[in-house]
Amino acid sequence: MPLHLAHSRQLFERARQVIPGGIYGHATPALVVPGASPCYAHQAEGARYWDVDGNEFIDLMCAYGPVVLGYRHPGVEAAAQRQAALGDCLNHPAAVMVELAERLVSLVDFAAWAVFGKNGSDMTTWCIQVAREHTRRKKILCVEGAYHGVDAWCTPGHGGLIEEDRAHVHRFRWNDEASFDAAVTRYADEVAAVVVTPYHHPLFAPSEMPAPGYLAHIQARCARHGIVFILDDIRAGFRLHMGGSHRYFGFEPDMSCFSKAMANGYPIAAAVGKPHLRRASERVFLTGSYWNSAVPMAAALETLATLEREGAIAGMERTGRALAAGLREQAGRHGLEVEVSGPPACPFLTFRDERNLYRNQHFAAECVRRGVFLHPHHNWFISAALTASDVERILDIAGAAFECVARVPRSGSAGPAPGVMGTLSQE
Amino acid sequence: MPLHLAHSRQLFERARQVIPGGIYGHATPALVVPGASPCYAHQAEGARYWDVDGNEFIDLMCAYGPVVLGYRHPGVEAAAQRQAALGDCLNHPAAVMVELAERLVSLVDFAAWAVFGKNGSDMTTWCIQVAREHTRRKKILCVEGAYHGVDAWCTPGHGGLIEEDRAHVHRFRWNDEASFDAAVTRYADEVAAVVVTPYHHPLFAPSEMPAPGYLAHIQARCARHGIVFILDDIRAGFRLHMGGSHRYFGFEPDMSCFSKAMANGYPIAAAVGKPHLRRASERVFLTGSYWNSAVPMAAALETLATLEREGAIAGMERTGRALAAGLREQAGRHGLEVEVSGPPACPFLTFRDERNLYRNQHFAAECVRRGVFLHPHHNWFISAALTASDVERILDIAGAAFECVARVPRSGSAGPAPGVMGTLSQE
Repeated sequence: MPLHLAHSRQLFERARQVIPGGIYGHATPALVVPGASPCYAHQAEGARYWDVDGNEFIDLMCAYGPVVLGYRHPGVEAAAQRQAALGDCLNHPAAVMVELAERLVSLVDFAAWAVFGKNGSDMTTWCIQVAREHTRRKKILCVEGAYHGVDAWCTPGHGGLIEEDRAHVHRFRWNDEASFDAAVTRYADEVAAVVVTPYHHPLFAPSEMPAPGYLAHIQARCARHGIVFILDDIRAGFRLHMGGSHRYFGFEPDMSCFSKAMANGYPIAAAVGKPHLRRASERVFLTGSYWNSAVPMAAALETLATLEREGAIAGMERTGRALAAGLREQAGRHGLEVEVSGPPACPFLTFRDERNLYRNQHFAAECVRRGVFLHPHHNWFISAALTASDVERILDIAGAAFECVARVPRSGSAGPAPGVMGTLSQE
Repeated sequence: MPLHLAHSRQLFERARQVIPGGIYGHATPALVVPGASPCYAHQAEGARYWDVDGNEFIDLMCAYGPVVLGYRHPGVEAAAQRQAALGDCLNHPAAVMVELAERLVSLVDFAAWAVFGKNGSDMTTWCIQVAREHTRRKKILCVEGAYHGVDAWCTPGHGGLIEEDRAHVHRFRWNDEASFDAAVTRYADEVAAVVVTPYHHPLFAPSEMPAPGYLAHIQARCARHGIVFILDDIRAGFRLHMGGSHRYFGFEPDMSCFSKAMANGYPIAAAVGKPHLRRASERVFLTGSYWNSAVPMAAALETLATLEREGAIAGMERTGRALAAGLREQAGRHGLEVEVSGPPACPFLTFRDERNLYRNQHFAAECVRRGVFLHPHHNWFISAALTASDVERILDIAGAAFECVARVPRSGSAGPAPGVMGTLSQE
């Protein structure tokens, strides 16, 4: 039985009249399996959501990361409402801004200070400016295929860019020390900053954990050459470790950017840094109409407190391990070999020896149809609301989906799935 | 009696330990009168707010613009809560995204489509990229001293920039057709876009309304040369006219950016554009973790409906006119000549024949001390919650403040007030 998507389709047709592409950005239907996914959500609670056609899904995407305790977590909602009853967007910050900065500085071992914005990009971009101000150098090094936001220096899109936007942004290969060393050698005293994610999570490909010593090597070279080492921890931060993902992987950057798991869906981003960057950070102007808003800060304080109090991060790791083991087992039963890559709390499934993702799309469509929402081209996210019985149900559905995939002969094509991979650059 | 600010000071001292500058951006105490303004807000309702020391203020800043119906407007709060009870940040947009895009396209006469972000900068920056994509040209022309956000091409800050950031951004003088024409002539076929605000509202100076025919002249030249004409309506949009501020001033841009008054403090920004820019708009990638969030969209729909239903824009214009007339009269009683500049709903007061703003600072400090929060260096904002009796009370307090200002001999200095004007560039 195919998924009932009539209302999603109607809304999308209306949207296409008045919104370029109907839905743009990470939620665009062009990035999932066209016609096999809802386009509009109606309601969400815990680890479940319902689309506008009334279909119910166990959720493995968590709004692409922000939802870490489950949708509409009672404690976070109550904290947000308490603050909202006083005020949100005001002439001045509220006291919660100071409390939240103190909290981040106490959670993140190297951090002496914190600032807040709305988008992840607000923070990655501001951090490279702080690095340029601190070093008086121009060059930024980052990893091929890494996502750091939509600002001109880093967007994966192609439109509207001019060559000056990236004249001083250079890419090296993940987990390739020689590639990194060559970039540093080539640009030597011109490099202001290196920006990395704590593990590599490109679209359309398995996630790659850092090789032993790789990030420590980058850290050491940055220290030697006076390069600012920036961790883009927006996707993984506070999902892998309460102290930031550098603690999970065992290294230490000079600045870190957070956003997604910070406030369980309330809009906020943060950057933290070492003491020696404080003066430069004071000289790079940052502001936004809603950057001092108090409700997301209250939500962040409660989210962080709940994560800690409930041992939620260890729980998500356990849940993710059980899910990954179960997926491998279910696939094996149907003669399929899958790779579940990335940290357990941010898993991604691919079929071995297949680069075109046709089977990923097939598998995702079969899961979505049966009530599990997961993504064929983007890593998934585990929330603390996902229970052991949810995982059992997911595995039952995955088994049925693997059975469907196993019945279809392998495609001979080595190329990407048509109409999907052209959307965004993988540099 | 000086204002009691002990708790604000304590919090600020704590903040300085963990936040660069303690408070950064537009709310930094460095931009108001140091020591004469609260730093932290506790609670707000209608046209009033209370700081963390319990001081009560009639508010003339509206959180620097977003609050247009008054703080915690019951209708907007109820609409936001209804949506929040379903969900906010989800895997897909909610139906309200389509409704809001349809609403903007129906409100703004030239608009065929709309997109949404969080920050004003998200939209101004995306619009110049759309213009570059559409024209395949690089140059951006904007007005000296105009504020379009904090992205590298436009930030008023100095730190962290490199020359490439603005290699193709050129400035012309407000209300000076010859200056604009010279820029267009000079860069001719290289100009992708002209970006203007509907009136000129620089920091540290009176606001300047457009001279008759000035914006129509820009519009005509843009049309003749295939330049995209972008209106940055973030500060004034939906406070001067339900159809966008170009209707208030009688001209027509190709794209407009909105944010502040759209959702009464809920974080959202929007851009709308003409049909011929739709294809380019589809090619410039835009996204953000919270850009599809449903609560601010529901709040925007309710804010726009309330503005329209209650005739709030005409009301704010009347309130602003009464305030401006009363301020001039009160100043005159004390032998002071003041200019109240800008549209009535976004007034700004300066003392004639004084460029250093010492008397502005003195006046603001005396008003704040007596319970009216207004700004010495930034335009003010009227909300629909400000009543005639609020205006009477403001004028009483302004009278007392003018009396204090009149008692102090004029400063002979022609320079800016120390420690304030160096903070931001006025290009």
